[in-house]
Amino acid sequence: MPQGAVGVNTARQLASHGVRTVLFTVAMDAPAIEKELSLYMLTKNRVLNNVSDLPNVGDLIIVALCEDTENPSHYPLLSDWINKNKAPVLALDPPTVGTPGITPKFSLLPVLPLPHSSNNGKLYLCNLGFPVDIFNEVGIKYKSPFGPKFVIPLHPRDD
Amino acid sequence: MPQGAVGVNTARQLASHGVRTVLFTVAMDAPAIEKELSLYMLTKNRVLNNVSDLPNVGDLIIVALCEDTENPSHYPLLSDWINKNKAPVLALDPPTVGTPGITPKFSLLPVLPLPHSSNNGKLYLCNLGFPVDIFNEVGIKYKSPFGPKFVIPLHPRDD
Repeated sequence: MPQGAVGVNTARQLASHGVRTVLFTVAMDAPAIEKELSLYMLTKNRVLNNVSDLPNVGDLIIVALCEDTENPSHYPLLSDWINKNKAPVLALDPPTVGTPGITPKFSLLPVLPLPHSSNNGKLYLCNLGFPVDIFNEVGIKYKSPFGPKFVIPLHPRDD
Repeated sequence: MPQGAVGVNTARQLASHGVRTVLFTVAMDAPAIEKELSLYMLTKNRVLNNVSDLPNVGDLIIVALCEDTENPSHYPLLSDWINKNKAPVLALDPPTVGTPGITPKFSLLPVLPLPHSSNNGKLYLCNLGFPVDIFNEVGIKYKSPFGPKFVIPLHPRDD
């Protein structure tokens, strides 16, 4: 699932649990994003594509902006808005080098993460629940580190 | 999703969170069940179809055995095994008249439940997270009763 689609999916699930969400999109060309967007629209929550329309306050900013490439795109107006905002920033599976201009407090990573830049904040590994044979099929010897947990911290403990 | 498929899906998700699951099936002819079963097999956990192979002890029995019809099928050997077992029984979206021979402690119901027989134990409504416009499209005026909750009790409070 491309970055943006993950973000739209997250917004929809939060909306379904009663959270007032505002979705800001930069591109909606991928079919997976279009599909997620059409589902999100069913929540009747807002979608914006102008930074100037974004609200001044929020409780949490979730960033799912860039694929993992060496040179992720920079969105200066958007990152300015984020940096002026006091809400904590959570990045979903961000590029390993970080998201240009944005320093999340936390990043949520899928299975078997790459080493990440400290620009991605505190790293948390998410249990996506892949059955063990999926790993066997690609030649990886895997024993789940999660036990009953959904998320495990990968960052060093604070002193 | 047919009853049985819901049960297999649940077993897979529990397995992915480290639970040792034993899946007992009575029929696997529906395509949705076949698909869920092929995913469950990837967990490498057990699948049985003989009651005599079932273990004597367990922590929880999850029942997803019958569609909601007026005369749901009865599986006498299986219900005997369940009734001899001390583990609590949770039914997933059981028939409104109950599952013959089985009296769950709890039942988990999807959106907009029908009235249920007291044979289904304590009723809990599950937040399946349908966006509000899904209800609008079928002419139902809906306001989610869940707030941030995943589940709400429908049964009377104990005295």
